Amino acid sequence: MHTDISSDVSAEAIRGYLLDLQQRIVVGLEEADGKPFFTDAWERPADGKLRGDGRSRVIEEGALFERGGVNFSHVRGDAMPPSASASRPQLAGKGFEAMGVSLVLHPRNPHVPTVHMNVRCFIAGSGPDAVWWFGGGMDLTPYYGKDEDCRHFHATCKQALAPYGEDKYPRFKRWCDEYFFLKHRGEARGIGGIFFDDFSELGYAESFAMTRAAGDAFLDAYLPIVRARRDTPYGEREREFQAYRRGRYVEFNLVFDRGTLFGLQSSGRTESILMSLPPIVRWCYDWKPQPGSPEAVLYTDFLPPRDWA
Amino acid sequence: MHTDISSDVSAEAIRGYLLDLQQRIVVGLEEADGKPFFTDAWERPADGKLRGDGRSRVIEEGALFERGGVNFSHVRGDAMPPSASASRPQLAGKGFEAMGVSLVLHPRNPHVPTVHMNVRCFIAGSGPDAVWWFGGGMDLTPYYGKDEDCRHFHATCKQALAPYGEDKYPRFKRWCDEYFFLKHRGEARGIGGIFFDDFSELGYAESFAMTRAAGDAFLDAYLPIVRARRDTPYGEREREFQAYRRGRYVEFNLVFDRGTLFGLQSSGRTESILMSLPPIVRWCYDWKPQPGSPEAVLYTDFLPPRDWA
Repeated sequence: MHTDISSDVSAEAIRGYLLDLQQRIVVGLEEADGKPFFTDAWERPADGKLRGDGRSRVIEEGALFERGGVNFSHVRGDAMPPSASASRPQLAGKGFEAMGVSLVLHPRNPHVPTVHMNVRCFIAGSGPDAVWWFGGGMDLTPYYGKDEDCRHFHATCKQALAPYGEDKYPRFKRWCDEYFFLKHRGEARGIGGIFFDDFSELGYAESFAMTRAAGDAFLDAYLPIVRARRDTPYGEREREFQAYRRGRYVEFNLVFDRGTLFGLQSSGRTESILMSLPPIVRWCYDWKPQPGSPEAVLYTDFLPPRDWA
Repeated sequence: MHTDISSDVSAEAIRGYLLDLQQRIVVGLEEADGKPFFTDAWERPADGKLRGDGRSRVIEEGALFERGGVNFSHVRGDAMPPSASASRPQLAGKGFEAMGVSLVLHPRNPHVPTVHMNVRCFIAGSGPDAVWWFGGGMDLTPYYGKDEDCRHFHATCKQALAPYGEDKYPRFKRWCDEYFFLKHRGEARGIGGIFFDDFSELGYAESFAMTRAAGDAFLDAYLPIVRARRDTPYGEREREFQAYRRGRYVEFNLVFDRGTLFGLQSSGRTESILMSLPPIVRWCYDWKPQPGSPEAVLYTDFLPPRDWA
């Protein structure tokens, strides 16, 4: 944990970046969709333990996005609970804050992949004892995969991280594959991307810069795929498969995702957190795709981890 | 924990009862639906730790039930893992078995409630050191509630438990209200019913008899409601509300239900466990019913716990 330059840590600068990132992403998505996102700004009244505020930007029944949200949230507390500081006893009782931007987009057209992106940071204490870290990443969940889309998504992530060390993309790619894995299905959620957490090894300025690079790369990683696939025709069959596969997204987010579970247990912002859940979902018993069908190709060629970049 | 009559404990008798109960319930449901349930029998090969077998009886796209399952499972292990026996150290390393019947039915008509029922038992060790308990219950999840249905469901539960002590229904009714509660929504899953767990206080014979009484009451508790509501007309509005409310069922089962989470982590029978998830589900942002609408009545008159019997 780097503490040497912690006096440079500026929650205000991080907050400013995150709010600007949210706005830029929403503008880019609105241009693609044509329908404006609505805004749900919220403030959590101080209840003695936690306070916070946030801005949910939400779209439903858009031309392109059936449901999606780009959420900013900023939670502050006066004293770290002992349970949260067990592994870092120097933080017990210290003030802390956590903030981030998190997005999930569920397109209507099954040829356009679902996408998730998140950047976040945590700061506890202040001065030389301060502890901080960054986390983030993005991952893509196609229904009908295209090699060139996956290569583009991963190449964009790799390029964004390259200035911060050649090891970053391979490490964060592997971390992503490990994190977005449905153990009870023995199946990846999608084709991955990048994931990092508890990151401070480059010092504050460079760690923050790397996190910004990840956030800033999102529109470049995703919008070209949207443009390439949005007019691909589809029918009932593709919609049914999409609804079925969206069930996996629900299973992952409700059973495994730490951010979702932590949020549900602590924040009281259920609707903002469950913004990640798809609009229409289907479960059916022991369904398996016809061997050789376009649906089977997702399982054989896209869900097993591959080197995409 | 009663151990005095543990030599009477017969896993074979319990298994026999459970398989017969499953069969009787499926026959009753098939009569109501008209479509036969299919059977998925499975055996878990001994992998050194656990072995087991089961029978999933499943219906999809029935006349009445859009999706549903009545599952029997029986899992056996040669040695209790230390984590599972922490509070009962005498069980460490002892053989154990767990078996049960669990059902969830999702009717197509939104005027027919979703229902869940489960009876289960656990036995560890043998002879005078054996430990065993029973658990079970049933709960009803209406979309458009009717007072008389809720009263009938609860009255049937109460009557079934009456021979085992007047305290049982009120205790198990409260336990059910507490268990089937979505903390992140501050909302009950449905109108409750009965729930009990870790139950041995009546001794083996009577505890088993009480558990049988609960299981045997299921068809009497549910089928009259099905018959009364199955022909009520509905349209797109009612189907949309049903799909939306089914989202709560998914949230409960994936975030809170201990049986589901334990099963997903341990059994490898994902499809049987997730049989409880509805066929078509919808999420949308911060939806609220129009005050005074039939949908609002669910929230005002049925979800808050009431004395139904």
